[in-house]
Amino acid sequence: MENKKETLYDSPMTMDRVLAILDNPGFDLEAVRADFDYLKSEGTPITYLDNGATTQRPNPVIDRVADFYRYENANPLRGNHRLSLYATQAYEEGRARVAEFIHAGHKEEVIFTRNASESLNLVSYIWALHYLKEGDRVIISRMEHHSNSVNWQFACQQSGAELVYVELDDDYSFDMEDYKAKLNDRTKVVAFTGASNVLSSEPKAKEIIRLAHEVGAIAVMDGAQAVPHDPIDVQDLDCDFLAFSGHKMLAPFGIGVLYGKKEILEKIPPFLYGGEMIEYVEDQTSTFAPLPYKFEAGTQNVGGVVGLHAAIDYMEAIGMDKIARYEKALAEYCALKMEAREDLEVYRPRHSARGTAVAFNIKGVHPHDVSTIMDSIGIAIRSGHHCTQPLHRGLCIAASCRASFAFYNTKEEVDKLFEGIDLVQETMNPGEVR
Amino acid sequence: MENKKETLYDSPMTMDRVLAILDNPGFDLEAVRADFDYLKSEGTPITYLDNGATTQRPNPVIDRVADFYRYENANPLRGNHRLSLYATQAYEEGRARVAEFIHAGHKEEVIFTRNASESLNLVSYIWALHYLKEGDRVIISRMEHHSNSVNWQFACQQSGAELVYVELDDDYSFDMEDYKAKLNDRTKVVAFTGASNVLSSEPKAKEIIRLAHEVGAIAVMDGAQAVPHDPIDVQDLDCDFLAFSGHKMLAPFGIGVLYGKKEILEKIPPFLYGGEMIEYVEDQTSTFAPLPYKFEAGTQNVGGVVGLHAAIDYMEAIGMDKIARYEKALAEYCALKMEAREDLEVYRPRHSARGTAVAFNIKGVHPHDVSTIMDSIGIAIRSGHHCTQPLHRGLCIAASCRASFAFYNTKEEVDKLFEGIDLVQETMNPGEVR
Repeated sequence: MENKKETLYDSPMTMDRVLAILDNPGFDLEAVRADFDYLKSEGTPITYLDNGATTQRPNPVIDRVADFYRYENANPLRGNHRLSLYATQAYEEGRARVAEFIHAGHKEEVIFTRNASESLNLVSYIWALHYLKEGDRVIISRMEHHSNSVNWQFACQQSGAELVYVELDDDYSFDMEDYKAKLNDRTKVVAFTGASNVLSSEPKAKEIIRLAHEVGAIAVMDGAQAVPHDPIDVQDLDCDFLAFSGHKMLAPFGIGVLYGKKEILEKIPPFLYGGEMIEYVEDQTSTFAPLPYKFEAGTQNVGGVVGLHAAIDYMEAIGMDKIARYEKALAEYCALKMEAREDLEVYRPRHSARGTAVAFNIKGVHPHDVSTIMDSIGIAIRSGHHCTQPLHRGLCIAASCRASFAFYNTKEEVDKLFEGIDLVQETMNPGEVR
Repeated sequence: MENKKETLYDSPMTMDRVLAILDNPGFDLEAVRADFDYLKSEGTPITYLDNGATTQRPNPVIDRVADFYRYENANPLRGNHRLSLYATQAYEEGRARVAEFIHAGHKEEVIFTRNASESLNLVSYIWALHYLKEGDRVIISRMEHHSNSVNWQFACQQSGAELVYVELDDDYSFDMEDYKAKLNDRTKVVAFTGASNVLSSEPKAKEIIRLAHEVGAIAVMDGAQAVPHDPIDVQDLDCDFLAFSGHKMLAPFGIGVLYGKKEILEKIPPFLYGGEMIEYVEDQTSTFAPLPYKFEAGTQNVGGVVGLHAAIDYMEAIGMDKIARYEKALAEYCALKMEAREDLEVYRPRHSARGTAVAFNIKGVHPHDVSTIMDSIGIAIRSGHHCTQPLHRGLCIAASCRASFAFYNTKEEVDKLFEGIDLVQETMNPGEVR
């Protein structure tokens, strides 16, 4: 991933450069926006800048899922009647599409889960119960989402391993030197985010993974905020596991992915138990199905997979390169405007790779008030700890506001956000000079 | 539940009585069928008798979910902007609707999961890691689905508890005497199905639960095949846990429910870790959110919950009593016709409560051939072990065929199944007298 980021940030992200990208996104932005019906809602127009929490869904995704339920619906894998074959085909084509999207070498390396959290719990539970022991070390970063930290707390409590945090450097980024200092040969797991959901810092994933492998640790990457916004190549990264959620990339809720290296998935025991994941069930013991089914207990979310397939088709028809370039320009435009103001604090790297979210505070105003006042003119941003309490403790703030962008957002919507900021100031600090 | 069954089966289910119910279902069957677009598919008409695997979805459910994604979509709970409030409302109204549907005393007793399998794994994992110990006993029945047996194998292997099976009586039902003989004061868990997905036997749930409580065990009921087909009252049953899946009752894939008694859910630790389920996250330890969020890590399947809400509305507009009466009459009509034939074996209670599935074999023909030939004329039934290998071992058969009915099926579709059976015989045993 580093290479790509270097390309995007290899010259300073000046306002001129940012504006040039926003003026020419390289795709038909108006046609894209016509696919999103929330933009046609009655009442105050919605400026949706909460894409880091979940994206909106374009009509081609919604319609494809509805059609699946109307004409191709059945329980897949278990039946040999027509509808079951249709459903099996839809399900397995979805898996193949995801594998292609992340450049997995084998489609059975794609395990479907309910969300990125379950994907990460799958790994942490298996390591907690089978591979971690007292004295082992698990390394995570200060900026992990709770879904990639609280699960490792449990794994360490369960196994007696120690949990160690890599701190931030002075550019709101993953401190590579601190990481190297904490990495030792007792380290069994390195779990880190591909892009912070708050700071939007994008750690040097390939290097982190390479160093983890040098000491024999597995590298678990939380891709929830990375996969929707960047081309990704799990083989190039060489990560052992990658987790992400469909709902943050246009797909329905309730579908997540765990990519795992085939040789590891084959070796480790299952997590959830039930139908489809077994081979032979004796009264007291069972043997388990081959990949990927070993990790998919019970009836899976076929509609979700169909939707994820349609979502990937939608994004790749635009082009992930173009999406990455445009979204980052939107975020950078926002950050540059914010950094020019004295009344705001911005929590975002300036010199290191960074993504599509901008976390900030209006000095002296509680983030909750900010988002509430913004909502009164239709601007949807998020406020709170964004499921990253250890990070906020590290930043010495209780909470923050976050605007997070998707490729269907516009420069005008970023400008609208600044109208919102002005409205907050007028409301909370009337008459003050800014 | 017993009371209801006694009412339905208190006089012999003669063909006359069955036909009277089928002639007068008490609801507008034609209007219902108009809501299912699979019936309008081009090509061979589909006779869908695989409802035990998953039901079809009526348009009001499909359309409601699509509308949610178009106009009310956001990540719930985490935001205070308009769309997030809509999504939160949709999500929590869904929870309240489910609670009402199963007569839970408190809406926070309804935990959303991905499917019944995950619901059951949640319970078995927590008991395996925190409550079971060597010498303890876990009782399940011979007819459990793998989702309520393989998970308990793991729990017993993990904890050193012993796993004991209640066998079938001579009417393909849960042997209450065998249960009483195996229940002892070392028994910590009794896990049983509310309705067998193969035999359709409906164990005397209330009595099983009462006896479990007498020895201090928790009672875990797999409601996957019961909740979609019968009015259910968890307070009357007094079960500690009840698991079921939305996709077997008109709702989308990817949404399941775990009902748990409030006082138990409050006491036990969480299962999956991540966003929303926490209260305070320190570096090494965390405290957890109150019910129901403690058990809902990460972004939940809001679209699935919205669909489940619409599905319950749809079924209750017809009436669960009418659905139960009509579906059982369909199954009974099928079973009575089958039992009159020498060339078939039927695996279904005659004198005990029974539900909406009919498992059978055509003597001398492999079930796989049966379902394949049936499919050639559009009949969708299932063949195999139906995720119940221990049961099939108990029945001394390798596999079986299963027709499973829903309220949108018709008497004519059951008759079509017999055309299918005749076609199988003509194909596999041509010229033989039957």
